Amino acid sequence: MGMRLTPKSELDARLGKLQGLMASEGLDAVMILQNADLFYFTGTIQSGCMYVPVQGTPVYMVRRDMRRAMSESALSEIVPFSSMREVPGIISGHGLPEPKRIGMELDVLPVSFYERYRKVFPGAAISDATPLIRRVRMIKSDFELEIMRRAAIQVDRVCRRAREVIREGMTDLDLAAELEYTARLDGHLGYIRMRVFNGEMIFGHAFSGADGAVPAYTDTPLGGVGMSPSFGQGCSGTGLVPQQPIVVDFAGSRDGYLVDQTRVFALGGLPEYLLAGHRDMLAVQDKMAELALPGAPWGDVYDACLALAAEQGHADNFMGFKGSQVSFVGHGVGIEIDEYPFLARGFNDVPLETGMVFAFEPKLVFPGVGAVGIENTFHISGNGLEKLTFSKEQITFL
Amino acid sequence: MGMRLTPKSELDARLGKLQGLMASEGLDAVMILQNADLFYFTGTIQSGCMYVPVQGTPVYMVRRDMRRAMSESALSEIVPFSSMREVPGIISGHGLPEPKRIGMELDVLPVSFYERYRKVFPGAAISDATPLIRRVRMIKSDFELEIMRRAAIQVDRVCRRAREVIREGMTDLDLAAELEYTARLDGHLGYIRMRVFNGEMIFGHAFSGADGAVPAYTDTPLGGVGMSPSFGQGCSGTGLVPQQPIVVDFAGSRDGYLVDQTRVFALGGLPEYLLAGHRDMLAVQDKMAELALPGAPWGDVYDACLALAAEQGHADNFMGFKGSQVSFVGHGVGIEIDEYPFLARGFNDVPLETGMVFAFEPKLVFPGVGAVGIENTFHISGNGLEKLTFSKEQITFL
Repeated sequence: MGMRLTPKSELDARLGKLQGLMASEGLDAVMILQNADLFYFTGTIQSGCMYVPVQGTPVYMVRRDMRRAMSESALSEIVPFSSMREVPGIISGHGLPEPKRIGMELDVLPVSFYERYRKVFPGAAISDATPLIRRVRMIKSDFELEIMRRAAIQVDRVCRRAREVIREGMTDLDLAAELEYTARLDGHLGYIRMRVFNGEMIFGHAFSGADGAVPAYTDTPLGGVGMSPSFGQGCSGTGLVPQQPIVVDFAGSRDGYLVDQTRVFALGGLPEYLLAGHRDMLAVQDKMAELALPGAPWGDVYDACLALAAEQGHADNFMGFKGSQVSFVGHGVGIEIDEYPFLARGFNDVPLETGMVFAFEPKLVFPGVGAVGIENTFHISGNGLEKLTFSKEQITFL
Repeated sequence: MGMRLTPKSELDARLGKLQGLMASEGLDAVMILQNADLFYFTGTIQSGCMYVPVQGTPVYMVRRDMRRAMSESALSEIVPFSSMREVPGIISGHGLPEPKRIGMELDVLPVSFYERYRKVFPGAAISDATPLIRRVRMIKSDFELEIMRRAAIQVDRVCRRAREVIREGMTDLDLAAELEYTARLDGHLGYIRMRVFNGEMIFGHAFSGADGAVPAYTDTPLGGVGMSPSFGQGCSGTGLVPQQPIVVDFAGSRDGYLVDQTRVFALGGLPEYLLAGHRDMLAVQDKMAELALPGAPWGDVYDACLALAAEQGHADNFMGFKGSQVSFVGHGVGIEIDEYPFLARGFNDVPLETGMVFAFEPKLVFPGVGAVGIENTFHISGNGLEKLTFSKEQITFL
């Protein structure tokens, strides 16, 4: 398949942006420890950590495996280490000053790790670097967009495979397994990275009928029953039957990057109110496309979509059923499935920017019946909104 | 498929054991937040938290979804909540005293979550509850063992499928996708829970030849190259060729429980030193079986296996190649793949106990060539060591 490596110019640009934000926030250094962030800033994931000074060359400290780090990362300063105690010496050995204010990924870093790092920097004040890291990562480069366009081709392949295999008598598990197999052979990593604590996800979800209206512990409008209470999301082994919506909500995954897409299928027809609901969600998508311009606040887009759904008569069904509704309609995607921006309630003071990529997923949930709606991944380009995912948006009747 | 629910008697026994350990450690309460622990102690996973007082009835507080919590969990006290601020009121409303010493899962809980909970209990001292939780979870009940035996049947099915499909010209990705498909249709959840920070895993690994000797960021003796530096583990898309070891290291997964098994295959033959190495690893397994009795320290078993491997002449190849060796030879399995006990260096003061289940995986790594060895999941029963996984242990030549 040929490994795609992240070029040095790409890593330098990312680190330069982070250092710029650090300077404006008054941070002397950021210590990066989490896998998704390590991949973004080093081009690889090894057991270790990345020390980013506000000025000067970042140092990637690698416990295991140095040889892989050297071959997969284009960074210039990669050094071996075996204990956190060596960190201050490595930093001063690179001519970098002792940091007084350090940023760390406090939204993902476990308390016990944090306590150990506090001992490494006993005099330093530690604050949350994740908002800065998120702000750098939310703007995608041409390099990243090219990968994401390939992920969109993969998820279309999954969608076309669904059209080929869906038939009465098969279960949603049969369908999910077929689609996962298709995605996997196309380079899907299987694992979906979610930043949120307790976030757990694999390829995506496939389910049908009433299962599509069952809420789950996942922060998603649709959850699914799952195969077991130990993983109460996604397919449940229920048979596909005519006249019920079959939902395929899948992530494309290429070279560490994700796109998110949802499509609806049905055996035979569907009741008219579900067809109308689906059309209404396409109209919500059109509304978003008018509004999601650089400068528009994330939350304003959400508020407008919620208002339109209410006008359409869907106040109790939009983004979940009354009592289980989520308070967002879109989420940034990239290396993780829950990146900036959040098209969500309350984010009315942060603007959309050129270069952002987000999944937009207006969906309607009808308890005991199922779900309809759409999800596409969009890029705010210099020339307007670009839809990265491209499978046919109408319900596919089989 | 029929959902398997955890019986009330099972949950009561688990919570009773935890409360006993809490009493001996002087904890007034434990707050459980992490998915694997929630599943173990509530029988379901909802968005919420479980408050366990040292005496009295635990309270499961559920944000989403109450209806699912009520139907999937056998607990008696399940209450809705929407904000952490409500927690003290819920606790006192259940007649429980204000806690002075609280345990939380500090090895997995992100700092930002912890800080919010600290504000909920401003006067309380917070310590790490994970060692106590691990100690309860490490002893498996008959209910759990029955599920794990079914997971062992699944992983044998995967192994038999490998024998059917391995052929020259296919890639390790083709093989992995086939085996994942087989496991998925048998109820494998796809997602493998790992407790360690940055632990990421799906079904398991399939790779061949030199790839088997490439170390990864995962804390495993074998890593694999992976499809991308963004997930540098497992298959790489490399073609299977004769005279090289093909390693299938897969987890069986049923109803939230895992077993772990590794088997070696080869097209044609293998060099004699690899065949001898494989036999030597079976001898290390025999050695472990003599030693792994209730009362034996975890680390002593590791030390003895390491010593035997050194006697066999494998000091530089056992559990990784020199410089990349891991310092364990076995790990507990259950809901997570990295449970107690750790058959690892330095754990010489904790004894094996009846009811423990662990994966034992003596492996040899030859750089540029590949890996051989074995992995099985064992149960320390009242009548000696029970091998839960049962696929043929000799190398399968195809």
